[in-house]
Amino acid sequence: MTIEAHRKTTIMDIAAKANVSPSTVSRVLRGSAEVAEAKRTAVMQAVTELQYRPNIFAQSLASGQSMTIGVLTQNFGSPFYDGILHGILLGLEKTEYWPLFADGRWHPEIELNAFHLLLDRRVDGLIVIGGQLAEETLRTVAQRTPLIVVARRIAALPDNSLYLNNFAGGYNATRYLLDMGHRDIVHITAPNVNPIAIDDIEQRYQGYQQAILDAGLQLDPRLVVEGNLQQQSGVLAVEMLLSRGRPFSAIFTANDQMAFGARLALYRRGIRVPEDVSLVGFDDEAFAPYMVPPLTTMRQPAAEMGQTAAKAVLDLLNKKKPNLPLFEANLVVRESVTRH
Amino acid sequence: MTIEAHRKTTIMDIAAKANVSPSTVSRVLRGSAEVAEAKRTAVMQAVTELQYRPNIFAQSLASGQSMTIGVLTQNFGSPFYDGILHGILLGLEKTEYWPLFADGRWHPEIELNAFHLLLDRRVDGLIVIGGQLAEETLRTVAQRTPLIVVARRIAALPDNSLYLNNFAGGYNATRYLLDMGHRDIVHITAPNVNPIAIDDIEQRYQGYQQAILDAGLQLDPRLVVEGNLQQQSGVLAVEMLLSRGRPFSAIFTANDQMAFGARLALYRRGIRVPEDVSLVGFDDEAFAPYMVPPLTTMRQPAAEMGQTAAKAVLDLLNKKKPNLPLFEANLVVRESVTRH
Repeated sequence: MTIEAHRKTTIMDIAAKANVSPSTVSRVLRGSAEVAEAKRTAVMQAVTELQYRPNIFAQSLASGQSMTIGVLTQNFGSPFYDGILHGILLGLEKTEYWPLFADGRWHPEIELNAFHLLLDRRVDGLIVIGGQLAEETLRTVAQRTPLIVVARRIAALPDNSLYLNNFAGGYNATRYLLDMGHRDIVHITAPNVNPIAIDDIEQRYQGYQQAILDAGLQLDPRLVVEGNLQQQSGVLAVEMLLSRGRPFSAIFTANDQMAFGARLALYRRGIRVPEDVSLVGFDDEAFAPYMVPPLTTMRQPAAEMGQTAAKAVLDLLNKKKPNLPLFEANLVVRESVTRH
Repeated sequence: MTIEAHRKTTIMDIAAKANVSPSTVSRVLRGSAEVAEAKRTAVMQAVTELQYRPNIFAQSLASGQSMTIGVLTQNFGSPFYDGILHGILLGLEKTEYWPLFADGRWHPEIELNAFHLLLDRRVDGLIVIGGQLAEETLRTVAQRTPLIVVARRIAALPDNSLYLNNFAGGYNATRYLLDMGHRDIVHITAPNVNPIAIDDIEQRYQGYQQAILDAGLQLDPRLVVEGNLQQQSGVLAVEMLLSRGRPFSAIFTANDQMAFGARLALYRRGIRVPEDVSLVGFDDEAFAPYMVPPLTTMRQPAAEMGQTAAKAVLDLLNKKKPNLPLFEANLVVRESVTRH
């Protein structure tokens, strides 16, 4: 089979070689699940042997659609954002749309540039994960292009944004520590990462405060420390905390990465977890079950959020009203908290 | 500014509004670094205000190029593969090419399907990370499409593959433990993940064996345990090992994820790291510095490999011979090994 011959291969050739109908070939190539395993294997073998490549690119030209969904992330390589990306990939897998990824890196200029590059690519829909794009920019683009914003509350776009109930997440994490008998509960927050995205973190902090107040306790600013969501800032936060001399028996961190850093700092000082200090994180990233001891944390359903975002943007493309549930973080009890 | 008006905006309008030349606008939109910061800001502001979208999609039709690079990964969400993807994103960032990602999930049929879907998209070049595609398939496609295979040795494609010296990595990890006085050194390997990709893991195992033999010691099959590269298999491997009753003072695992699992299993048995057992991993993923204690490991330059792969595929597109160095894993000494 030469390269020249391959270019003339049609779907009919595949059907003949695989001994199936042309519509079966079509269904297999579109990734439909409703094809018997033996037929699918026969088709894929024929595709390989004949080196068939259907001209989807040419088809999309004719239709005026690029058959792509632009996906703007903020931090490629971070566990939570990658979890959402993974969900988006899964959500688009059985469709004819492909994701085009771009990374804004939590930097306003880079993000705006990446957003425009995606629009330049004539994406049929857009998913924006977090970020700091002006609400006005998002609102304007949403008027002409199906747009879903995930992991960020946009007041101006209630029908286009998908996010977590961060207040309840922060409240329930703190409530759990209170229920376990803790009274002197530290919170490691991250107020200065950037002006907009910080809403999630601020909501978790407010949930922490409300739970403390609802338990009839006083808020104590000496129990609140600031990090930047990175592991190393959890190390520094615990160092800062210990230097204050204010006793505490538990720490709730605004994300798992800072919990891992906090845990390392406690280890270096010979402070045991959970015997001396209990620890609760937020995210439930892949490493959390393998922290020593395994980390009790609030699980964010990142992959489900990504899949829901993919489904929602496809709904918008099909002129359907998308389903945009408020996601909840669930407590995952492991071994980093003990009764006080 | 209405949407209709936006559609008529040209590069000349941007230039007028930003008070720069049209060629400056063009350079900014292409992401060129050779533009003064003030001019770039002015152009980006004008782009935003005028909602300009150059028709790159139409341009690529005219040229017959899709201006995309297909990237086939095997395990979206795994730290090492995401590190390579991140490098590819960085490597393509200042070019006009965009990556199209697809996930083969280490499943031969899904991988072959994803590979064909990328070809269907008329990608201008291809980067395949790991995987099990037949060498013949890769060789045939490489004849007509610029192709780089990263993190997999392909004997038939010496000018298209980019990989790590895994033998030396395994040798040097073991050599370090020997130098620290260890004699009874366990290796946790993963021979059955899949028939092809396992070459990397096999090379690390052979490096381990050679280092043991070069030290004048005997190989002992009771010191070799099998996992599957996932954290949980590291837990099970240590349980298996302890049940054998063969004493050991150090463990070298074929990847960091299994090291994290091994560390947790040792913790559960009350075995201290490094006081009772030293531990060396392979990869240096983001969590390794925050393991308790911080993990000594062999660093794989994943992002650099991704960037080099991106540069190599662009070289092939430009009919240049790519630079394909043999990458080396470097020992990162932290706190999980002690002298025996």
